[in-house]
Amino acid sequence: MIKTYLYNHDEHLMYHDVDLFEKDELLENPNNLLWIDMYNCTEYELNYIGELFDFHPLAMEDCLQKSPRAKVDEYDDYHFFVLHAIRYDEDASEDEISSIELDVFLGSNYIVTIHTVPLNSVGSVARVCRDSVDYMEHGAEHLLYNIIDKIVDELFPILESIGDRIDEVEDNIFVYRGTEVTEEILALKQTLILIRKVLIPQRNIFSNIRGRYSFFIQDENVPYFLDLADHLNSLLDMVNTYRDLVNSAFEIYHSVISERTSDIITILTVISIIMMPFTVITGFFGMNVPIPGQNNPFMIWGITLGMMILAIWMIVYFKHRKWI
Amino acid sequence: MIKTYLYNHDEHLMYHDVDLFEKDELLENPNNLLWIDMYNCTEYELNYIGELFDFHPLAMEDCLQKSPRAKVDEYDDYHFFVLHAIRYDEDASEDEISSIELDVFLGSNYIVTIHTVPLNSVGSVARVCRDSVDYMEHGAEHLLYNIIDKIVDELFPILESIGDRIDEVEDNIFVYRGTEVTEEILALKQTLILIRKVLIPQRNIFSNIRGRYSFFIQDENVPYFLDLADHLNSLLDMVNTYRDLVNSAFEIYHSVISERTSDIITILTVISIIMMPFTVITGFFGMNVPIPGQNNPFMIWGITLGMMILAIWMIVYFKHRKWI
Amino acid sequence: MIKTYLYNHDEHLMYHDVDLFEKDELLENPNNLLWIDMYNCTEYELNYIGELFDFHPLAMEDCLQKSPRAKVDEYDDYHFFVLHAIRYDEDASEDEISSIELDVFLGSNYIVTIHTVPLNSVGSVARVCRDSVDYMEHGAEHLLYNIIDKIVDELFPILESIGDRIDEVEDNIFVYRGTEVTEEILALKQTLILIRKVLIPQRNIFSNIRGRYSFFIQDENVPYFLDLADHLNSLLDMVNTYRDLVNSAFEIYHSVISERTSDIITILTVISIIMMPFTVITGFFGMNVPIPGQNNPFMIWGITLGMMILAIWMIVYFKHRKWI
Amino acid sequence: MIKTYLYNHDEHLMYHDVDLFEKDELLENPNNLLWIDMYNCTEYELNYIGELFDFHPLAMEDCLQKSPRAKVDEYDDYHFFVLHAIRYDEDASEDEISSIELDVFLGSNYIVTIHTVPLNSVGSVARVCRDSVDYMEHGAEHLLYNIIDKIVDELFPILESIGDRIDEVEDNIFVYRGTEVTEEILALKQTLILIRKVLIPQRNIFSNIRGRYSFFIQDENVPYFLDLADHLNSLLDMVNTYRDLVNSAFEIYHSVISERTSDIITILTVISIIMMPFTVITGFFGMNVPIPGQNNPFMIWGITLGMMILAIWMIVYFKHRKWI
Amino acid sequence: MIKTYLYNHDEHLMYHDVDLFEKDELLENPNNLLWIDMYNCTEYELNYIGELFDFHPLAMEDCLQKSPRAKVDEYDDYHFFVLHAIRYDEDASEDEISSIELDVFLGSNYIVTIHTVPLNSVGSVARVCRDSVDYMEHGAEHLLYNIIDKIVDELFPILESIGDRIDEVEDNIFVYRGTEVTEEILALKQTLILIRKVLIPQRNIFSNIRGRYSFFIQDENVPYFLDLADHLNSLLDMVNTYRDLVNSAFEIYHSVISERTSDIITILTVISIIMMPFTVITGFFGMNVPIPGQNNPFMIWGITLGMMILAIWMIVYFKHRKWI
Repeated sequence: MIKTYLYNHDEHLMYHDVDLFEKDELLENPNNLLWIDMYNCTEYELNYIGELFDFHPLAMEDCLQKSPRAKVDEYDDYHFFVLHAIRYDEDASEDEISSIELDVFLGSNYIVTIHTVPLNSVGSVARVCRDSVDYMEHGAEHLLYNIIDKIVDELFPILESIGDRIDEVEDNIFVYRGTEVTEEILALKQTLILIRKVLIPQRNIFSNIRGRYSFFIQDENVPYFLDLADHLNSLLDMVNTYRDLVNSAFEIYHSVISERTSDIITILTVISIIMMPFTVITGFFGMNVPIPGQNNPFMIWGITLGMMILAIWMIVYFKHRKWI
Repeated sequence: MIKTYLYNHDEHLMYHDVDLFEKDELLENPNNLLWIDMYNCTEYELNYIGELFDFHPLAMEDCLQKSPRAKVDEYDDYHFFVLHAIRYDEDASEDEISSIELDVFLGSNYIVTIHTVPLNSVGSVARVCRDSVDYMEHGAEHLLYNIIDKIVDELFPILESIGDRIDEVEDNIFVYRGTEVTEEILALKQTLILIRKVLIPQRNIFSNIRGRYSFFIQDENVPYFLDLADHLNSLLDMVNTYRDLVNSAFEIYHSVISERTSDIITILTVISIIMMPFTVITGFFGMNVPIPGQNNPFMIWGITLGMMILAIWMIVYFKHRKWI
Repeated sequence: MIKTYLYNHDEHLMYHDVDLFEKDELLENPNNLLWIDMYNCTEYELNYIGELFDFHPLAMEDCLQKSPRAKVDEYDDYHFFVLHAIRYDEDASEDEISSIELDVFLGSNYIVTIHTVPLNSVGSVARVCRDSVDYMEHGAEHLLYNIIDKIVDELFPILESIGDRIDEVEDNIFVYRGTEVTEEILALKQTLILIRKVLIPQRNIFSNIRGRYSFFIQDENVPYFLDLADHLNSLLDMVNTYRDLVNSAFEIYHSVISERTSDIITILTVISIIMMPFTVITGFFGMNVPIPGQNNPFMIWGITLGMMILAIWMIVYFKHRKWI
Repeated sequence: MIKTYLYNHDEHLMYHDVDLFEKDELLENPNNLLWIDMYNCTEYELNYIGELFDFHPLAMEDCLQKSPRAKVDEYDDYHFFVLHAIRYDEDASEDEISSIELDVFLGSNYIVTIHTVPLNSVGSVARVCRDSVDYMEHGAEHLLYNIIDKIVDELFPILESIGDRIDEVEDNIFVYRGTEVTEEILALKQTLILIRKVLIPQRNIFSNIRGRYSFFIQDENVPYFLDLADHLNSLLDMVNTYRDLVNSAFEIYHSVISERTSDIITILTVISIIMMPFTVITGFFGMNVPIPGQNNPFMIWGITLGMMILAIWMIVYFKHRKWI
Repeated sequence: MIKTYLYNHDEHLMYHDVDLFEKDELLENPNNLLWIDMYNCTEYELNYIGELFDFHPLAMEDCLQKSPRAKVDEYDDYHFFVLHAIRYDEDASEDEISSIELDVFLGSNYIVTIHTVPLNSVGSVARVCRDSVDYMEHGAEHLLYNIIDKIVDELFPILESIGDRIDEVEDNIFVYRGTEVTEEILALKQTLILIRKVLIPQRNIFSNIRGRYSFFIQDENVPYFLDLADHLNSLLDMVNTYRDLVNSAFEIYHSVISERTSDIITILTVISIIMMPFTVITGFFGMNVPIPGQNNPFMIWGITLGMMILAIWMIVYFKHRKWI
């Protein structure tokens, strides 16, 4: 699908589904802004747009392939971005996290967005752009900001939900037992590793170094991109903190299992130490050899009494040594 | 609640609860200083102040939302700070540590502080400012320094109390046993992770790079901000050292459990090795088949003697191999 | 084997197996490009080429020795590269990963590649260069780019296959048991360590620092080398992510084993606690001393009933304490 | 105690216990050098000196409080240093390591040192300064160098003694067993963490960045401060190496315990597998039901022979499987 | 021992054992080069040379003491290097690795090397310098390069031998058992930690920062020092890779032990579960109370059959649950 949105600066009006053959005319006024949003596109359509704007073959190749790492490439009169949105499905049997690539060509007064599946963030911007000039009257990079801001904002509820799961794990490690906890911890670790992998290059693109950005931003838009970088840094902070928390919880869980093993072995040992002498004693008096007092009817009470005293002494001793 | 404090430079006097409609008049003299402290404010009040000073919508948005990461944003004629105070409750069943956001607008001769709950540090500065010009006669950033200094000073007793808890854990790992130690270690780890998360961005704001700060500071105030940065670095040093100490203690604790498990299994094995042959021997002489010497009344003493010799030999052997 | 390819700029034609005695003539035109590809070469052949181009003795030494680390050395009128291709053999009993050295001399209009075994990447470039001017008409560093690009592209399927193996391990840690999982994890760890070791210096060579490269690149070729650096960074990202995933899986696996040990010891303890008293009871009534009710025919039913009640009570108790 | 030492440049002589009221006169000659050493001082004495030299209130506050982190602060005409000496007591029941704060004001021709307890290093410098001009004729920072050099030199024997303890632990982990090793490892870890915490900020103060120091050093004194920085770096290298060695030793110790547990469980299992069938066999023939051959006097030899064959076969089998 | 070597530029000849009283004459010609090699020297000899060349007392002090960290110090007209060669003795009962200090004074046309024991690398350079001008005709830093290059080249076979030991350990962790593996891993870890500690400061000395070295190098010698830095980086890469491999192998070994413990406990549990009921059953029929069918000669076959059925059922059940 190719959708187009044109902001006409002179008329201060939005047009959509414009004729791309008139592209050069539409973009003649440097204050106009053309947005082409492509998704589910065939290679033919992609190449058509590529040729229309004379995009570099390496950038076109990146659009056709899967690029797992966000980046920005500078070309003569446009920038090419590879960005990633994150899709999170807590109930997925495998791979809770997947990333969706969004390729963007950012020209002086046009922007081309390419993605394989519809994206909520792009969709909600597009819905506004149908009627309102709000997102497009401040130039191409302000429109770009709005799209990425939506992508980034989607991450906060995801991380909150992960935070809740970590809280739950922290409660469960002292209570439950079995592979649910272990499986949940593994899932959390994987999820955080993958989110981090997606976020770090994205953060690097939008961070400035001594006030300089890797691409041109108008002064009035700088606060917006600072805000974006700040959100990305907050997200990374949260991911790192969560990773530390999951690791702590996992280490403690491991220790709890060791303690339980140690406790249960102590019980086994105590039981064995108490029961084994009894087995030997009863066996001793069960031998088919002449036993003194073999016929004494009070013998059995004597034996029972002896065993009881032994048992009580051992229990007192173990209590004293804090084994039980 | 909106509280206002005005330092009138010409009269060298403090006023409070001034009329904000006269704001422009009050701030005409660049040596005057106006402090507006807002807490428990409605969105309406916030927006009113925002419009009065013409604050940037992105900064206003950050005041309304929760921002988990300290930062400073530069705008045309003011700076916007997000800071965090730490609230520590050792006896809390969960989440010993929570952070309270403090948003600050720092202009050339005004300062606006926004927080959702009353803060001790802001309160104690406010009490002084009611009567005395001490905190406000040296300019806006000196007032800011005093507020943050109070926030930072509150952290030292918190970290000392954490240090005491670590000392206690270090003593307990060799003595006590059970989940109290494990739970305490988990709580300490979480607390240190969260304090660290709050401190690091705060430290970065107040550190200078080659003598340059991210916001303007008058020369006479530089030593104060150097002192602040130094306190924040000391705190981070302590947090990092505590983290290392907790991790060491936890690793050692884990090892102590393994040692105990190993010891108790050794005891179980020694008991089994001594007792099991006795069970077999007594069982052997208890078989209902003709046994040589079955009717010999000294037989039982022979068997007893044999078992005793075996027991003594085994105990000597185990002592020799240092098992017991 | 020495193979030579000459791009004649004036005729816009390829020649191969040219006479190296005419080297100076061939390279007179700065737009011509000579590629000498050497593999399985004797030391004599290497020295012959070294003298022909007057290469530095230290560079020649590096060609004869094994250099485990990629690097680029600048000499007066050429650059010397040591690069490494990766050979991956999943079914190898040992050392799944091996690296093959590729030494490259990059002059202004000549390029000399030296490798001990034939390389797919070099071969496929050579096949194209036989007939087509595509790879050689854009200068020496564009030819170099094409060779390295092929080497780098070979790594993506390798890493995908490693990713699949990691997925498999993550599934198996909860199901299978035994050394297959452990051996697979060790193999994966080793493989990732070695790939990383090969990739990092390679990445550093082709990364630019503030737009400056460690060797000269024509402006029109810069996007290609940016793309190369981006691919290398993507690969390193994947390797690092995989390393984190393998480590997580391994830690979880370790925990799963501990849990199983704990579970099985619990079962052993429960069985012992139930069975040992029975052994003592039956032994008690088997003693050769007068037992009250020794001749009562209902005695045995009483004993059996008592043991059953004891067993049921213990099972209920263990269920209550969630041991079974 | 306040002790004063004055180097009179014109007379090339030392004076001590000079009258501080004449301070300004004494320091008129820029080549004179006044050293004021204060320890066990009351707050009153501290404030007196502070006012005499007009020290900044923030620096005075740091002298009164405990500052856990070394630093240097630049003021208008002097520098303020917080440094730490290390006290090491191997036989302490707790806290082998403690740090003693040394605060220094370094002016152009005066130096004020403040510490709560007497310091060996300061004492030995003071003893020399009573009679000899050696330490004070080269200016204030040379005197400072001498004091710090003594503090740093005290650390080398401490680290050597720690190194010996690590060697001992490395020997013991394969031999001894019990909490001594664990307690010693914990003590070593804590000691190294605390030394490291003290050393790192100290190192940073005396390291130069591109030949620039954080305070002014005369050219002739630069080699001395380079030497100091080198000593501090050596110490940090040793601390880091020791930390790695202790961690390695601890990991290996943990593994040795696991191996022992595994070995002892193997023994328990072997004993149980051999003994349990015997118990069953003797019990079988002890049943009070008609047993074939019940009255055969050779029966017992047959049973004994059978049990022996079974025992030998099991031992051979276990040896074959390398369990014993 | 003091050995001297003089390269006379005018005559293009080597002299040795020259008279050091004529030092100034010999060094008048800036193209001459004097090398003084000192080993097993008395403090008196050291001080004699120190005074002859007027070396700084701090450098002389470093020659007399042990300096564990490589460094280069710049003095007015010479540089002072502390370097370390590594001695490796695989069969040493303790401390496989030791480092030998080499102190070097590098002047414009003289070089003084000081070491306590003879060094292979220095010796082999000295042997060449006796007759040939090869090593000394290119200036002092080229001679220095040759000595260090020999020291560095000695490390490659050491690391290869360590690599072989790691391969062996990786094979043994799945096969052997016992402390040999653990002791070997500890030895490898210690060795790698110590080699790393020696290499890192050495690498830093010979790395350049943006083409600038910490000491002066003639342009023609730059490729040699680049090559040296490259070799040192290769060695560090290998050490780091080996460290990762040893750590991986150790973690896996730890896991293998846990698996074995888990397996052996499973066997113990299975045996106990099978044998304990038999003990109870035989005890039950061995009780001295009237048992129904006590005199039935087929009773024993019935009991045996029952026990067999129970045993088979349990084995089938355990096989089904994959315990055996």
